[in-house]
Amino acid sequence: MATILFLSGPNLNLLGEREPEVYGTRTLDDLVAAAREVAEAHGHTLEHVQSNHEGDLVEAVQGARGRCAAVVVNPGALTHYSFALADALAAYDGVKVELHVSNPSARESWRRTSVVAPVVTGTVAGFGEHGYRLAVEAVAACLSGR
Amino acid sequence: MATILFLSGPNLNLLGEREPEVYGTRTLDDLVAAAREVAEAHGHTLEHVQSNHEGDLVEAVQGARGRCAAVVVNPGALTHYSFALADALAAYDGVKVELHVSNPSARESWRRTSVVAPVVTGTVAGFGEHGYRLAVEAVAACLSGR
Amino acid sequence: MATILFLSGPNLNLLGEREPEVYGTRTLDDLVAAAREVAEAHGHTLEHVQSNHEGDLVEAVQGARGRCAAVVVNPGALTHYSFALADALAAYDGVKVELHVSNPSARESWRRTSVVAPVVTGTVAGFGEHGYRLAVEAVAACLSGR
Amino acid sequence: MATILFLSGPNLNLLGEREPEVYGTRTLDDLVAAAREVAEAHGHTLEHVQSNHEGDLVEAVQGARGRCAAVVVNPGALTHYSFALADALAAYDGVKVELHVSNPSARESWRRTSVVAPVVTGTVAGFGEHGYRLAVEAVAACLSGR
Amino acid sequence: MATILFLSGPNLNLLGEREPEVYGTRTLDDLVAAAREVAEAHGHTLEHVQSNHEGDLVEAVQGARGRCAAVVVNPGALTHYSFALADALAAYDGVKVELHVSNPSARESWRRTSVVAPVVTGTVAGFGEHGYRLAVEAVAACLSGR
Amino acid sequence: MATILFLSGPNLNLLGEREPEVYGTRTLDDLVAAAREVAEAHGHTLEHVQSNHEGDLVEAVQGARGRCAAVVVNPGALTHYSFALADALAAYDGVKVELHVSNPSARESWRRTSVVAPVVTGTVAGFGEHGYRLAVEAVAACLSGR
Amino acid sequence: MATILFLSGPNLNLLGEREPEVYGTRTLDDLVAAAREVAEAHGHTLEHVQSNHEGDLVEAVQGARGRCAAVVVNPGALTHYSFALADALAAYDGVKVELHVSNPSARESWRRTSVVAPVVTGTVAGFGEHGYRLAVEAVAACLSGR
Amino acid sequence: MATILFLSGPNLNLLGEREPEVYGTRTLDDLVAAAREVAEAHGHTLEHVQSNHEGDLVEAVQGARGRCAAVVVNPGALTHYSFALADALAAYDGVKVELHVSNPSARESWRRTSVVAPVVTGTVAGFGEHGYRLAVEAVAACLSGR
Amino acid sequence: MATILFLSGPNLNLLGEREPEVYGTRTLDDLVAAAREVAEAHGHTLEHVQSNHEGDLVEAVQGARGRCAAVVVNPGALTHYSFALADALAAYDGVKVELHVSNPSARESWRRTSVVAPVVTGTVAGFGEHGYRLAVEAVAACLSGR
Amino acid sequence: MATILFLSGPNLNLLGEREPEVYGTRTLDDLVAAAREVAEAHGHTLEHVQSNHEGDLVEAVQGARGRCAAVVVNPGALTHYSFALADALAAYDGVKVELHVSNPSARESWRRTSVVAPVVTGTVAGFGEHGYRLAVEAVAACLSGR
Amino acid sequence: MATILFLSGPNLNLLGEREPEVYGTRTLDDLVAAAREVAEAHGHTLEHVQSNHEGDLVEAVQGARGRCAAVVVNPGALTHYSFALADALAAYDGVKVELHVSNPSARESWRRTSVVAPVVTGTVAGFGEHGYRLAVEAVAACLSGR
Amino acid sequence: MATILFLSGPNLNLLGEREPEVYGTRTLDDLVAAAREVAEAHGHTLEHVQSNHEGDLVEAVQGARGRCAAVVVNPGALTHYSFALADALAAYDGVKVELHVSNPSARESWRRTSVVAPVVTGTVAGFGEHGYRLAVEAVAACLSGR
Repeated sequence: MATILFLSGPNLNLLGEREPEVYGTRTLDDLVAAAREVAEAHGHTLEHVQSNHEGDLVEAVQGARGRCAAVVVNPGALTHYSFALADALAAYDGVKVELHVSNPSARESWRRTSVVAPVVTGTVAGFGEHGYRLAVEAVAACLSGR
Repeated sequence: MATILFLSGPNLNLLGEREPEVYGTRTLDDLVAAAREVAEAHGHTLEHVQSNHEGDLVEAVQGARGRCAAVVVNPGALTHYSFALADALAAYDGVKVELHVSNPSARESWRRTSVVAPVVTGTVAGFGEHGYRLAVEAVAACLSGR
Repeated sequence: MATILFLSGPNLNLLGEREPEVYGTRTLDDLVAAAREVAEAHGHTLEHVQSNHEGDLVEAVQGARGRCAAVVVNPGALTHYSFALADALAAYDGVKVELHVSNPSARESWRRTSVVAPVVTGTVAGFGEHGYRLAVEAVAACLSGR
Repeated sequence: MATILFLSGPNLNLLGEREPEVYGTRTLDDLVAAAREVAEAHGHTLEHVQSNHEGDLVEAVQGARGRCAAVVVNPGALTHYSFALADALAAYDGVKVELHVSNPSARESWRRTSVVAPVVTGTVAGFGEHGYRLAVEAVAACLSGR
Repeated sequence: MATILFLSGPNLNLLGEREPEVYGTRTLDDLVAAAREVAEAHGHTLEHVQSNHEGDLVEAVQGARGRCAAVVVNPGALTHYSFALADALAAYDGVKVELHVSNPSARESWRRTSVVAPVVTGTVAGFGEHGYRLAVEAVAACLSGR
Repeated sequence: MATILFLSGPNLNLLGEREPEVYGTRTLDDLVAAAREVAEAHGHTLEHVQSNHEGDLVEAVQGARGRCAAVVVNPGALTHYSFALADALAAYDGVKVELHVSNPSARESWRRTSVVAPVVTGTVAGFGEHGYRLAVEAVAACLSGR
Repeated sequence: MATILFLSGPNLNLLGEREPEVYGTRTLDDLVAAAREVAEAHGHTLEHVQSNHEGDLVEAVQGARGRCAAVVVNPGALTHYSFALADALAAYDGVKVELHVSNPSARESWRRTSVVAPVVTGTVAGFGEHGYRLAVEAVAACLSGR
Repeated sequence: MATILFLSGPNLNLLGEREPEVYGTRTLDDLVAAAREVAEAHGHTLEHVQSNHEGDLVEAVQGARGRCAAVVVNPGALTHYSFALADALAAYDGVKVELHVSNPSARESWRRTSVVAPVVTGTVAGFGEHGYRLAVEAVAACLSGR
Repeated sequence: MATILFLSGPNLNLLGEREPEVYGTRTLDDLVAAAREVAEAHGHTLEHVQSNHEGDLVEAVQGARGRCAAVVVNPGALTHYSFALADALAAYDGVKVELHVSNPSARESWRRTSVVAPVVTGTVAGFGEHGYRLAVEAVAACLSGR
Repeated sequence: MATILFLSGPNLNLLGEREPEVYGTRTLDDLVAAAREVAEAHGHTLEHVQSNHEGDLVEAVQGARGRCAAVVVNPGALTHYSFALADALAAYDGVKVELHVSNPSARESWRRTSVVAPVVTGTVAGFGEHGYRLAVEAVAACLSGR
Repeated sequence: MATILFLSGPNLNLLGEREPEVYGTRTLDDLVAAAREVAEAHGHTLEHVQSNHEGDLVEAVQGARGRCAAVVVNPGALTHYSFALADALAAYDGVKVELHVSNPSARESWRRTSVVAPVVTGTVAGFGEHGYRLAVEAVAACLSGR
Repeated sequence: MATILFLSGPNLNLLGEREPEVYGTRTLDDLVAAAREVAEAHGHTLEHVQSNHEGDLVEAVQGARGRCAAVVVNPGALTHYSFALADALAAYDGVKVELHVSNPSARESWRRTSVVAPVVTGTVAGFGEHGYRLAVEAVAACLSGR
């Protein structure tokens, strides 16, 4: 019934190719398909946007205002410095989930700071390819009020 | 088929009473029951331990070695300083999930550091009462290899 | 007589909608119109560009070199990390004014650092909707040598 | 109609003499006269106090409570450490403007911290001699509700 | 029998007016009267000085040397930077009590550092209007050797 | 009429033996007896618990909810890191007083940070053996509304 | 034989115009021509991309995967914050050289941190216009295995 | 002749099982037996206590006062935050040795801070299984005055 | 021939009384007399001002402009925070000497930062009572051009 | 025509033996021979000095003043703390190149600070054995003014 | 059977003279003799080198490569900044022990950082004159594989 | 009557040549001659040692023990990191003066930290060529007890 906007940030188009020991071997298309399957099982529609441009992601979040019930965002490296994306999310009042494929706390120290985290509803991190499904489960739970 | 150990740290026995605007209104028993339901739907058994004593939690994790396939832990305030709990988790090699009811990044700055995060598989934070179910979903996904 | 370039950064297209208790209720078009009115009262022309893309703003500043006598920029969240915008401003030698609608010092601590401030002529911050007019007054004063 | 209190802190009595390449060549009297002219053009009265004593400035702000509609303060070096002045301003609920002749962000690093900034309405900095006029324009705009 | 010097720093003359939700509604005169009552009940005399000038407070502490058995000081904002007041207190060897009406640890982070605390006998903070009485009780206890 | 819970943390059972130049020569029993005397003079009852276990102290605070009108706590070294104790105190809504026998600001630098201070009503520190009486005086004042 | 991708980041299109005392007087086209000459002398082909958009640079690096033997990048101001560019470079496994025209260590302190440096093969910095040739020499040396 | 108390903190009961590449393959019982052998060779008695509870270790140190000539403590993760254990050791005036199996300086950065180190006689770290014997040798040397 | 202004800051009127093990036993009058003797031996005149008020010291420095060939200042605790005094000294272009009786580097860590040091000609510190004579010797040397 | 002084600091005499996975397998003599070959191809002479003594390196740089047209220095670990070497380089006004065999930014964090970098012309780092040749190419380019 | 190189850094030739309350009263010769006695009791030979020159110590460690089975080093003040010595030790692959006579953690804060500690096998610190014997015991244990 | 050891550290042999706008135009020999003249006027003998080797300076200070009544040291760049020199000075108990020709506080920020300052009697800094004479005056004053 609701539309969920699913955003993938810079370099996530490389999923399945780049550092598979960190990010897994399935492609972004595979993961989005899995996420969509969960969304549809809950009666929701899932739109997906991937961009390597911060401005595109900002505008995608802006465009979700009043149209989508939830935003899931895997901001990639923008997690750590894009206050512009954080501001766009702060101005969006639906359910918003920050998703990371790997566990940022187990990697380089600069990956431990998320400028996005303070403005989202919640975070799902570290579950690898399962994360894409789990983030949508989290959205569905929040939307259902279960 | 597998046993999941679910740990709740200091003050989580107050859930439903303490700062309900932050932690929600359902009691720990309610939330554990919901989590158990998810576990059982996936064919798993869920054991729950709540303690206000760091040593008890350390020993519960130790006791899960070789016996439980996964540990979910909501360490409460120990999240931020219990290197002993982190060491116990590091020595445990099943699936391990760090769970927070509220979003620590949206609260006091000292809540942004988790000494547990670097040694777990992944984190679920900020989804309120839904978190208890979602953390078990995350475990089930990891165990199923789905 | 002179052309003033007025730049609005990420999310400023939401002015009037987003967090009105912080940013006020008038739209960006309203504010630019008010600013233009001031410019014209001083015999100047005002061009306005809004973009959510750092690169667009960098190029707008580059394009002002040798063509515009002044640049007013409300960099939005880019204030805090866009060294690329700061470099573009450093390479521009007209009058340059940094504008903020709200008072960054009264908000989150990360809003207290401006990477742009060291390279501008001056700053106008905290006067809400009046800021758009005041920034142009500041430009006019600098241009008039009054 | 309203009374504006204009405060100048330590060493501002040297304006026109001290480091003219930083602070310009006009004296404090000249600048205050220009500011008064603006105030009067808006129908307001301007009172000016210069002091090298923190306590005098604190008391001047206290004395403005309930009597003046706005305070403009160029705190000079007190900007960077006078929590007492900041407390006095916090207890004053009219319009309050922090003014700097030079751009503190373009100078020594200790000039980048203002303990006053979090408690004022807004800031005007870096416009040299024009700042005295612009600060009063800012007050007038806030008072007029324009 | 002994004389107690009670000092109130910058802006404390506004007690009862300024931010009553933080500082309470009774005036400084009321609070000093209550403190004097306690002093006299213990057979002591209480002198009170309020000043917004750091130098006055330094000199008041100097003047207490060899004349007063104890100093109670609510340094207001000087708490956080007046090393001069701290030096004066260090050179005074009677009982010395640092008093705060509100609980500085529950407010802005800069209020958590007291440059005075390392040189006083002890601190009473956070008890609001009761603090004035309690600080004198503390002095009386120390003087009585009870 | 009211019950006051008085808590003493790790190593306070050594009072009177350990580093008497810092902590004085009277035993914990002596000090508690003196505190109880003050409580009873005000018509209150005082319960005392000493423990070297963080978990015990957390549970004692939990047990005071709805039963005791005030908690006085000398957390000993837990002052500096027990966020679990702080969380328990935050969830308790009676009067709560943090007590230190010595002046932490005059000792090692790590003793200057209290994780408990932001959640208590107020603090009494540095008055040595008198502190036990004064903390109860503070409670009594708060309860009496005097 | 090999293709070398040469990337120039924000504001480098201004080379020859902007701050010539820092960056020299030759244009970007001149410098790229000189670099190409070196590449061709070693039997390699050089492609050049300049963009003020982080996303374009990220995609250019992605596009070099499996197609170019080396990437030389002068990231301009992105050096200091673009973790997205760093991630793209980390996912590229050819030779990669970070180039700076000026010596960042001899300039503003924020220029001393490079988020790109940890993921490149090596760095050439400070040799002004010679840097463009030297960076290609460095690539050629690495490719030749000399 | 003397009694040596040997304390092992959290997770040390896992020695021989947990991360053997870091901590070696012998069990805690083996290592204590080896340590006891050294103690007895010097004519001393060795008591051993392992606990995962900070409070137990604090009380064990307290109980050694006036009864044991020396305490050897391997605090495990408590090394890094247990000011309560540090306080207990500070109040103990026999010989006290801090022991680590691995070399904390060669591991995670948080392992480089020991809150216990400033209050012990000396430290033995990094010699793996040999450490248990060497720590007792160190005690014996100190006791013998050799 | 020249006039030397000698300034003594807060609490220096206590010299000879306060902490004589740190500051010596001679009074400020004694030390100024000794300094004057040196000045006169070089044919100079010495004026002395002591004040506990920052504003007085700022004005004394201002008054020395164009009238005194040198200023010697022992700023006392103002050394560490009075940017206002530093600004006044920066605006004075004669010889200026910062004097400390004790060696600040050998005392509390906060005494190691001098906000005055960057703007003076030179510093004389740590020579106790000899410092007053040596500072004037330093002035005389600078004035003589020897 | 020109003389180039090539300096190798502490432990570089171990090149080819020490940590070959970091520093490569060729000896210092091999690398210097390769560098000399490049120098001579450009018509320059190369002198080489290796020392494990900071003082020797300082004196070698001093001795190059007025005699050598360029200095290449691989300071080894002195890079990170030898302000004495940095001062010697600052006092030398020929071309000066800082060379590192490995990429310091990709190693331990303390290797990321170079006290030498701010005073050299430029840096070549991370190209392994090629670095010795490339650094001389860089010198030759600077000397030729090409 | 094995040769142990024992190194003593700057100022250790003063042992027995310098600050005997910190370093004890026995001379370096005495302590080395005691250490040699232990070495010989285990069938090993001990060579000793003391130098106040960093370069000598670096070269002594280099010279131990392939010749000595172990190095014990008391680096004196070099502990805290000699990355050159640390590099030499990192390139040495025998047993290596860092020795301190006093307990650095109980002294000035700058003594708490050892740049050598991360590259040694283990550390013995704080046992005064016993340390020289204990360090050799530690070496012997490691060599024996006991 | 007394012997004064005067030490000059790295690069001070370049005085008169190196950066004359900072260090003046007189050579080290000139300055030492002037200092010796002052010493002899007070009846003292002056020995001078210049070295670019930290170890030489350490040994010179050691050699002054029991033979020289005072040491003046201009440590050059060693000021900022040579804890070995600081330790040698700490072990010397005569008068010791730290001398700097320029004012370190007015230069690069790393020049503001002196590791030597906490262990000397006093400091003379910033008086250029006069400093050599003034430092000896300071020694003479301390020795005369004047």
